[in-house]
Amino acid sequence: MDLQFDWEEVDAFVRQPDGMLFSWCERFHFYRHLIYGIIQWEPGEPLLQRLEAESIVKLVFPLHVEAKRKRLLRVWALNWWDFTDQPIDEIYSYFGTKMAVYFSFLGMYTRWMLFPAGLGFVVHLVDFGPFQLLVLPIFFISIVLWAVMFSQFWKRKNSALLSRWQISYSVGAYPGYDLGFKVPGKDRSSLQSSVELISKWGRDKKNDKERFQREEWFGTLMRFRNDVIIILSIICLQLPFELAYAHLYEVVESDYMKFGLTVIYLFLIQYFTRIGGKISVQLINNENNANREYRADSLVYKVFGLYFMQSYIGLFYHALLHRNFKTLRQVLIQRLIVSEVLENLWENSFPYLKYSYKKYKVRRKSKKEKGSPTGKIQFKSRVEKEYLKPTYSASIGEELEDGLFDDLLELTLQFGMIMMFACAFPLAFAFAALNNVTEIRTDALKLLVMMKRPVPRAAATIGAWLNIFQFLIVMSICTNSVLLVCLYDKEGKWRIEPGLAAILVMEHILLLIKFGFSRFVPEEPAWVRANRVKNATQAHEMYSKQLLRSISGGERTSNEIMKVE
Amino acid sequence: MDLQFDWEEVDAFVRQPDGMLFSWCERFHFYRHLIYGIIQWEPGEPLLQRLEAESIVKLVFPLHVEAKRKRLLRVWALNWWDFTDQPIDEIYSYFGTKMAVYFSFLGMYTRWMLFPAGLGFVVHLVDFGPFQLLVLPIFFISIVLWAVMFSQFWKRKNSALLSRWQISYSVGAYPGYDLGFKVPGKDRSSLQSSVELISKWGRDKKNDKERFQREEWFGTLMRFRNDVIIILSIICLQLPFELAYAHLYEVVESDYMKFGLTVIYLFLIQYFTRIGGKISVQLINNENNANREYRADSLVYKVFGLYFMQSYIGLFYHALLHRNFKTLRQVLIQRLIVSEVLENLWENSFPYLKYSYKKYKVRRKSKKEKGSPTGKIQFKSRVEKEYLKPTYSASIGEELEDGLFDDLLELTLQFGMIMMFACAFPLAFAFAALNNVTEIRTDALKLLVMMKRPVPRAAATIGAWLNIFQFLIVMSICTNSVLLVCLYDKEGKWRIEPGLAAILVMEHILLLIKFGFSRFVPEEPAWVRANRVKNATQAHEMYSKQLLRSISGGERTSNEIMKVE
Repeated sequence: MDLQFDWEEVDAFVRQPDGMLFSWCERFHFYRHLIYGIIQWEPGEPLLQRLEAESIVKLVFPLHVEAKRKRLLRVWALNWWDFTDQPIDEIYSYFGTKMAVYFSFLGMYTRWMLFPAGLGFVVHLVDFGPFQLLVLPIFFISIVLWAVMFSQFWKRKNSALLSRWQISYSVGAYPGYDLGFKVPGKDRSSLQSSVELISKWGRDKKNDKERFQREEWFGTLMRFRNDVIIILSIICLQLPFELAYAHLYEVVESDYMKFGLTVIYLFLIQYFTRIGGKISVQLINNENNANREYRADSLVYKVFGLYFMQSYIGLFYHALLHRNFKTLRQVLIQRLIVSEVLENLWENSFPYLKYSYKKYKVRRKSKKEKGSPTGKIQFKSRVEKEYLKPTYSASIGEELEDGLFDDLLELTLQFGMIMMFACAFPLAFAFAALNNVTEIRTDALKLLVMMKRPVPRAAATIGAWLNIFQFLIVMSICTNSVLLVCLYDKEGKWRIEPGLAAILVMEHILLLIKFGFSRFVPEEPAWVRANRVKNATQAHEMYSKQLLRSISGGERTSNEIMKVE
Repeated sequence: MDLQFDWEEVDAFVRQPDGMLFSWCERFHFYRHLIYGIIQWEPGEPLLQRLEAESIVKLVFPLHVEAKRKRLLRVWALNWWDFTDQPIDEIYSYFGTKMAVYFSFLGMYTRWMLFPAGLGFVVHLVDFGPFQLLVLPIFFISIVLWAVMFSQFWKRKNSALLSRWQISYSVGAYPGYDLGFKVPGKDRSSLQSSVELISKWGRDKKNDKERFQREEWFGTLMRFRNDVIIILSIICLQLPFELAYAHLYEVVESDYMKFGLTVIYLFLIQYFTRIGGKISVQLINNENNANREYRADSLVYKVFGLYFMQSYIGLFYHALLHRNFKTLRQVLIQRLIVSEVLENLWENSFPYLKYSYKKYKVRRKSKKEKGSPTGKIQFKSRVEKEYLKPTYSASIGEELEDGLFDDLLELTLQFGMIMMFACAFPLAFAFAALNNVTEIRTDALKLLVMMKRPVPRAAATIGAWLNIFQFLIVMSICTNSVLLVCLYDKEGKWRIEPGLAAILVMEHILLLIKFGFSRFVPEEPAWVRANRVKNATQAHEMYSKQLLRSISGGERTSNEIMKVE
């Protein structure tokens, strides 16, 4: 239950899991408000902003709490015995909601992964004799059922987690996955926009309604235009490039050439993706999404389009056009093992190297300036050391996303890879499961040791990524069907008339539109939503005040005590 | 904005569209509470229940308000000039939410129908020469897009309507269509169950959570069992019967025989459906659905299964197995024109005949008893006349549904018929549009003239029916694809390998499971929901009280006036 805080009523509030009165996210925003808002140079001019502008203060960032950090290192990052169990409540109180939700998702995903991993192992190793023909379809069906159940049960787990952490999301929630939510220490920009939204909704209902409708449609149109731009540029620019690489890989015979080709390809694709990300961020700044989390989601969809092409087009090429399952499996193994291991190493070693280099530079500099560093340097060094550590930021669009973007992207690409080509390589699930068990640890290590402590974010779900998971499940149903056709039809005897094929393609596109349309047009018009949010917010605030007042008035009826409890 | 009512604060409340303070649904429940709850024979024993038990009071039912009834007759039922425009606000204040939502849906459906009706007309009449081959696919695509957009925009319109009528549904709403909602005069049984739900949610959180989880899973299991029973009995009993009829219809040559066959079939199917409905009601009474509207939805799904087989299996048989498009079109015309016209006539004439017969019987009886009826009989006759009119009840399960069940069923079956066989008979849309324009009037007439004034119901949406509409859209994408294949492949040259066909069927079933699964397992566990509803309800009540108190205390700050406004 949410109440407005009142110092005299401190007993009425439920404590956080770590015994604190406020969550880490709330505390962070209090501190920020204190140092930016209240300490002023001249009236109206925050001191710190001025100091930052004159680069006397270089950076304001949250510091690690050594005791807790060490405890988390022991029970979480370096604890290999609890396979997928993590101290989620501790993570929540140390890193905030979004991070805890991510690790909870990663843990549940890995735990559920053990089932298809085992199944894939059996399918790969055991020979079922006369039933061998039926094995792959059955594997396919169980995998899809598994994925469907996983995504639904994750939603349940997510809402259970939020309820445990006393985060209410009933107000302002679009039906669906992206639960907006409301805590006192809410993200500043999003709070502002919702306040703006509400204050706009004044007396003149008729006019307001029209303006809201106009704005909503204009927003939809802009988003649509941006989506079209992104999709077209992906198809016209990226698709040929990817196909050229896949084709060359298929044609070239020597292994050394292949290796060289891959290196060049990886080098080029890095730049390509970076440019695409920049363009997407630019486009999104023109959209007027309701708040920061919506903007982030919009970015995620667009950037995932880029990565989707990058990661899967080559695989589709080998699997569907050439029916070359050997190369497909080879590429899958290469991606799943080599590149994920390399990526994990890179993720941890690159920040460390960067940090070491910076430290070295600073040391040399301070050695030059003074003779030898002694005395007080020991105390300063912890803050200074952490200042030198890299920040936990996304590879694209720093202002919208933190490092979770990269971690979730990695997870999603892996999910797409193992799901969409499940029938071609059932063993992939086992590799993925193994990888994810280490992923939990390396991500934890990265957060606790390699990086600055990340700024807490208020998002209560994994947002757009779950929608992408759902999309990948649908895609995997279609691709695996095609894979099965290719596998059973080794002699290429099965024929399909062009008319029939055209009708089938049309049917699938229509089914996709049917299930995707509701994303474009929300169920609730913007003005209805604004009205509802306003009403509910007011009711809630008034209620909180009244409840506290009645308690402080000494009228603690048993009824009210129960409510607070 | 919802406030708890307080007589002294009467000015603070927004009036209903008809100038009343309370909606018709609320007033009805006040009256009921007054005559059942407050007037007591002995302490604790309501007078009226006793009188009913001894059949001194025969029936308690809402009377028509003559002035309003006549006005509605003039501006609504007999107003043929406003094509699909209806005085929805007046309907809302006279019949309550559910009825108004139904007529608003019917109106919007009919208005949107004009587009495919025109398109179907063009496709049917114009010869496009060399492009003739492309006409049907394009028609198919536009119809599907139309249907998808219609169902989404209806949701928006529905939420706009609720916002106009000041019905808030933010609390306790499952994400999705079936918005639960909360008004002071809420339906008694549903109120009770939600109160029960909340009171259960006591201090002992751990235990409660477990009990809720157990109950939820048990409920899901029971529902699943019932669904399986219904589906199996439909497949094992109804399917062979329907196929036998369709086969005989195909085989028999003489038109008289066909006619006779249809009569026998219609006679048998009546009984069949009635028995199926009874069984479904029995099964549902074993389920523990959260409230009355959920129970009603569960019934709708089950009974629609029966009607789905009944209405479409014959059509599928003609279309897909025999590729006999002549018979298919014949049956479609027969169903759309003859049976709908007959049904409309029946709907209006049967209640009238029943009413006339009853009146005649009563007249004869009273003539026998007295000599000749004079004097006071004129006054009594209005109430007595209305008592003799039939009640607005469903053909199945009176305790769960009112007459809207039949009306919505008719509409849904029509939608399925025209959508699923759109490519075989594009003209069907025009017939349906014509039919719906008259349907609005006949339904209105039925309500205003033929029937007792119906008891208002609190449902704020069309509930399960919209889900069925969505399901029918998906079905229609699949069936029309098959129809197109049949139409283009007149010589039967296109061949499909059995392996390929099996994989395609499997793919479609998996897609269906993917999109249907979320209906079985809700996104939010029951205990989270209970917790949330409890919090929000308390907040709201407290807020209302406080707001009223502060106004009555003379502290009308401008801020608060704005809030109330």
